[in-house]
Amino acid sequence: MSRPPLPAIADFPFWTDEKLRIADTDHNGHINNGAIGQLCEAGRAELIQAATGDREGRDFALAVARVAIDYLREIHYPGRVRIGSLVTRLGTSSVTVRQGLFMDTALFAQAENVLVILDTQTRRPMAIPSSLRANLLNMMKK
Amino acid sequence: MSRPPLPAIADFPFWTDEKLRIADTDHNGHINNGAIGQLCEAGRAELIQAATGDREGRDFALAVARVAIDYLREIHYPGRVRIGSLVTRLGTSSVTVRQGLFMDTALFAQAENVLVILDTQTRRPMAIPSSLRANLLNMMKK
Amino acid sequence: MSRPPLPAIADFPFWTDEKLRIADTDHNGHINNGAIGQLCEAGRAELIQAATGDREGRDFALAVARVAIDYLREIHYPGRVRIGSLVTRLGTSSVTVRQGLFMDTALFAQAENVLVILDTQTRRPMAIPSSLRANLLNMMKK
Amino acid sequence: MSRPPLPAIADFPFWTDEKLRIADTDHNGHINNGAIGQLCEAGRAELIQAATGDREGRDFALAVARVAIDYLREIHYPGRVRIGSLVTRLGTSSVTVRQGLFMDTALFAQAENVLVILDTQTRRPMAIPSSLRANLLNMMKK
Repeated sequence: MSRPPLPAIADFPFWTDEKLRIADTDHNGHINNGAIGQLCEAGRAELIQAATGDREGRDFALAVARVAIDYLREIHYPGRVRIGSLVTRLGTSSVTVRQGLFMDTALFAQAENVLVILDTQTRRPMAIPSSLRANLLNMMKK
Repeated sequence: MSRPPLPAIADFPFWTDEKLRIADTDHNGHINNGAIGQLCEAGRAELIQAATGDREGRDFALAVARVAIDYLREIHYPGRVRIGSLVTRLGTSSVTVRQGLFMDTALFAQAENVLVILDTQTRRPMAIPSSLRANLLNMMKK
Repeated sequence: MSRPPLPAIADFPFWTDEKLRIADTDHNGHINNGAIGQLCEAGRAELIQAATGDREGRDFALAVARVAIDYLREIHYPGRVRIGSLVTRLGTSSVTVRQGLFMDTALFAQAENVLVILDTQTRRPMAIPSSLRANLLNMMKK
Repeated sequence: MSRPPLPAIADFPFWTDEKLRIADTDHNGHINNGAIGQLCEAGRAELIQAATGDREGRDFALAVARVAIDYLREIHYPGRVRIGSLVTRLGTSSVTVRQGLFMDTALFAQAENVLVILDTQTRRPMAIPSSLRANLLNMMKK
């Protein structure tokens, strides 16, 4: 299986800053894998917010269909992390977001997130609205 | 300051069982204080559910005004805990719930929770509805 | 991309029971994706515990290298979930565990976890000890 | 019961900044009470860190004996919060820390935390070391 190369800071057009908490640690002494999932979610949420604008009045929702996280090295409390996000694929009704998670400048995890655009009424997949598609295109690699 | 005596298993008419998770631990190697707050919340929620019945169609809500937790001893993953709950005071629009948290038969924490009954429309305190008051009376010490 | 078929209850030799908490919910009204990650972790931890025995005196550790979760449908509080786990691959120093997460009998998520066996001293990958390998073989599909 | 007046921003000599996460929300649509406990813990941890310096080589530990939180109003994701901390009492082997939690400039919760200084060897309470006492005195109201 050939994996894509590890991401670098320059790959990501969109950034989210988060701060580690004691509750993010576990009895192995490091930041818990689930907490790293929360950091990915924080990055996804800010990217979605930036791409879709206000939640009010929207006729679509984004549901998370798949999250795959590669844990590359341990990190420890205290500290701040930066989550870089990049749209890597735009399907008819789905978006793929790749993320790199950095502490200081070291990559400690990467993630691939697949989101599906749902019609708020029917809760079924719908084509990505054109204004959202335009915004997401701006978060793809140039 | 005189404190009430520590609670015993026989004091509690209502019980909730929970199971510890790795994410409940922290880098001190024990169950995190915040996770113990989640266990208290689990007990409160089941007591409220038992006393109020279905959430649907209710014209009141219960808001948590105060939670005070005494941490008596450390506990460690893995394991199960039991949360005993007892209504200790019924005011006009507030309820006080005392809790004892046990692992095996050892008390490791106790909590006092003050809940306020709110009118769903106005979000202001309202008198405890009579059927709810009757149910809560059944959860007081005989 | 061809995906393996969705797992069924009968596929899993190892089971973990968990109970949902209010803190597992989020403002979308459902169980948060990160909380579902905690449920996968609970299943992994119990499988590892069953396969390796006591943590004391072990000269190896298991590190999580990758977790990929497919979110198939929303679930809601309150309730209990069952996490089925199955070893699908045994490499020289890595183990792949597939999981199916069920509420009542409905599959709501599946996960693939890759674990690496590390030498506790060097923190580098080491060959799976033979007794652990034997135990993990028992958790593969017959 | 006469309660002390609600705290104001000017009361607190020590501040911690935190950022809300989606995982902090619950199905009531607001930030979960337990997540507010995590914010108090973040403030406690930074105050302890500032007062005690490096964890390495210390012969004492601080254990949380009691946390009482008053929930004054709901807050919602997204946003940042500031936690002000103030030492209000120094006993022989215990410290009381009062906290005010603010979003924008509005107080939404307050907390009282009682910490006990433990001898790392015996795990029993010990007198507050003089250098720690001096640092904690600087975090009391002038």
